[in-house]
Amino acid sequence: MAKDKKLVKEITSMEEDFAQWYTDVVKKAELIDYTSVKGCMVIKPAGYAIWENIQHELDRRFKETGVENVYLPLFIPESLLQKEKDHVEGFAPEVAWVTHGGLEPLQERLCVRPTSETLFCDLYSKEIHSHRDLPKIYNQWCSVVRWEKTTRPFLRSREFLWQEGHTAHATAEEAEERTIQMLNLYADFCEEVLAIPVIKGQKTEKEKFAGAEATYTIESLMHDGKALQSGTSHNFGDGFARAFNIQYTDKENKLQYVHQTSWGMTTRMIGALIMVHGDNSGLVLPPRIAPVQAVIIPIQQRKDGVLETAERLEAQLKAADIRVKTDKTDKSPGFKFAEQEMRGIPVRIECGPKDIEANQAVVVRRDTREKITVSLDELAGKVQEILDLMQKEMLERARAHRDAHTYVATDYESFKKTINERPGFVKAMWCGCRECEDRVKEDVQATARCIPFEQEKLSDKCVVCGKPAKKMVYWGRAY
Amino acid sequence: MAKDKKLVKEITSMEEDFAQWYTDVVKKAELIDYTSVKGCMVIKPAGYAIWENIQHELDRRFKETGVENVYLPLFIPESLLQKEKDHVEGFAPEVAWVTHGGLEPLQERLCVRPTSETLFCDLYSKEIHSHRDLPKIYNQWCSVVRWEKTTRPFLRSREFLWQEGHTAHATAEEAEERTIQMLNLYADFCEEVLAIPVIKGQKTEKEKFAGAEATYTIESLMHDGKALQSGTSHNFGDGFARAFNIQYTDKENKLQYVHQTSWGMTTRMIGALIMVHGDNSGLVLPPRIAPVQAVIIPIQQRKDGVLETAERLEAQLKAADIRVKTDKTDKSPGFKFAEQEMRGIPVRIECGPKDIEANQAVVVRRDTREKITVSLDELAGKVQEILDLMQKEMLERARAHRDAHTYVATDYESFKKTINERPGFVKAMWCGCRECEDRVKEDVQATARCIPFEQEKLSDKCVVCGKPAKKMVYWGRAY
Repeated sequence: MAKDKKLVKEITSMEEDFAQWYTDVVKKAELIDYTSVKGCMVIKPAGYAIWENIQHELDRRFKETGVENVYLPLFIPESLLQKEKDHVEGFAPEVAWVTHGGLEPLQERLCVRPTSETLFCDLYSKEIHSHRDLPKIYNQWCSVVRWEKTTRPFLRSREFLWQEGHTAHATAEEAEERTIQMLNLYADFCEEVLAIPVIKGQKTEKEKFAGAEATYTIESLMHDGKALQSGTSHNFGDGFARAFNIQYTDKENKLQYVHQTSWGMTTRMIGALIMVHGDNSGLVLPPRIAPVQAVIIPIQQRKDGVLETAERLEAQLKAADIRVKTDKTDKSPGFKFAEQEMRGIPVRIECGPKDIEANQAVVVRRDTREKITVSLDELAGKVQEILDLMQKEMLERARAHRDAHTYVATDYESFKKTINERPGFVKAMWCGCRECEDRVKEDVQATARCIPFEQEKLSDKCVVCGKPAKKMVYWGRAY
Repeated sequence: MAKDKKLVKEITSMEEDFAQWYTDVVKKAELIDYTSVKGCMVIKPAGYAIWENIQHELDRRFKETGVENVYLPLFIPESLLQKEKDHVEGFAPEVAWVTHGGLEPLQERLCVRPTSETLFCDLYSKEIHSHRDLPKIYNQWCSVVRWEKTTRPFLRSREFLWQEGHTAHATAEEAEERTIQMLNLYADFCEEVLAIPVIKGQKTEKEKFAGAEATYTIESLMHDGKALQSGTSHNFGDGFARAFNIQYTDKENKLQYVHQTSWGMTTRMIGALIMVHGDNSGLVLPPRIAPVQAVIIPIQQRKDGVLETAERLEAQLKAADIRVKTDKTDKSPGFKFAEQEMRGIPVRIECGPKDIEANQAVVVRRDTREKITVSLDELAGKVQEILDLMQKEMLERARAHRDAHTYVATDYESFKKTINERPGFVKAMWCGCRECEDRVKEDVQATARCIPFEQEKLSDKCVVCGKPAKKMVYWGRAY
């Protein structure tokens, strides 16, 4: 059992050093590896399988709302990137530039897409002529590049995977409706599938996307009390349409500009899964997103009938649509337990000669470590029940954690003290001024995470400057 | 009906100008659009949905053989690309170079991956230590960039989508087995799903992949008699392992080099679908790959009960797992027929008031235009039968076309005459010399497509130089 202790011991505890704990988990759970390309990572099979499940589930939900997938080029000519002023200012400082193709210098530099608004606009300006061509509800799954100075696996890397939806509508109302529809879709996905509760709201002017009229966001809270922006949905109004001349003739034969949106979710959600659900034994995956939901670990597997029983149980669980594997390697059971815990597999099923004699198996939940003895005759049904319960309780636990780390401040001294001493969200009133945001950033390195849709009136005054308050804001330090 | 005639007329006929016909189909069937980025295309919803089906079907087959998906960086540092001599010579002239990140020049240039052997080797050199770490059977779905001078949608573009599998094995035998296994998987996929018959064989030394010990290929024949390389599988032996120092300790505790393979299939298969099955009315998609397999076109749809019946039939077909849509737009039926034909939807189902009265619908096959009257009570079953038959007959027709355009030549004069006058494959004997391949290339612009696994002895002598023949080769002009 020395080896399994070693495996566990190799992780720093999250209380000791949360950042190191995170790095240890992504490595030991074999989600990523570092590469020779600074700031870029390899997403290994255990990590990529989570992303495939995220893709599968999101893509299905997108298509139910009429989204069509497309693929646009990796490159953006410099002149195209520059067409929308705010947008280029936001992105130019952090793009990678291609200057040579083959042995020859290019006539015009190409940037590797940091996001594809400009390419979609270029396409829409050619494709959209009449109100009959609207709406366009396109999405693409791809990688994007942003030349970040400091990077962390999943949370901030120079290349990451995402989906980016880009839509064009006849009216402002329709665009706003789609923006909110996709934000709600992301929120439902996070809560139902990833078991991560989110706050839905709007970004301030300071924090909104470069070129957007309004940016909506879902914000989640990590175990260490830091916030993570988990998905954004932007309403561009007709700003891009004017810059790219995307016009259509309406039913009265008048020329009109389209109204556009974009929305995205990325591989950083794998980081969120780790930081919301993980513990000092490693990853804990919610059953609905887990690539492997149950692992069968045969005890004394060389004894007569043990492996045969394991195979029979595996077949039963598969037939019940449970994603199951059997660990038949020659490692010790203790080592296999530690591996299952590190990899966050929701349940393990232990079954040895004595269990078989008693026609039972022991099911152990990854999150609570609860051991449940189950008759072999009803294993599949019971495992499914346990997985469903675990999914539900993981969301409840994450919500309880978030609520316990959400504070209220009505004066600036207690606001700063709370931010400094109690990691979490701080709800406080705000006058709407950029100056107050800047001051909070300078004083306590926190930002306005969002202006939540669910407003509360905590006081009449801005927590920073004391002037009349306009909105309640969730503040916090963020990844 | 003027409009639908116009739609059809806008396509050049394939007999008049095959290249223009191809370009017309990709545009009119709305598979792609051109972009502001020279040599790069937009894959539009109708095109991308075909790629999604290819992905889904290949990915399922891969996983059944133990393949695990991963994601590696988009960029390759110049020093890493240069580690394997033949490989860098093959690819360096056609890569795109990133020289600046953000506002600063990079210390080392990065190329945008043209293929990822070097990155996988870099990963394997870190991951593989013991025979217990083998085999590694990784695959990634991504885009790659090759700075081509002349481009054509799907067939040759500066960026294209593909999958690239990269494996590492303990022994040479295992690597060879995996190489052939994946070639067979590609061949089965092409024939069973895309209805494209292929010739399986080995590439000559001249035509093999840069850095490979052996390249295997599947070659298909387009409607115009040109060959298309449709998928390749490479055995690298231990060449890359030596260049990247990928070693493991075997069971006797001795250090050994791994043996590697790679294999890929790309979006050019969408081009193959067009050029093997298309006709002068547009695309013809084999049912198993078609995103929409059947379109219901209501006739006199404003009359009582017509749309209701269409909806009921749609629900029936959906319940039978047929991918079906109903075209309820206000276009004329004739226009809708022409659109269905242009987009290659395998069957259309016409149903109007008279049909409803007779409790029937008319099913029209896209490939043969055969009209089949079917009772509404058994529509789903009959449509499935028609789709299955169509799938089978499309493969048979493509095979008959290929066989009718496969010739034999035993002397060089008739060889050249056949290549020049009869587009297709020419089977002929070959001595094994590079000089003869070069001469054929110079004289008639044809290449050795492959040395087929199924050898025939057509004569004793090389068709070019007359020296003793070693192998029978399929020759042809290729895309």
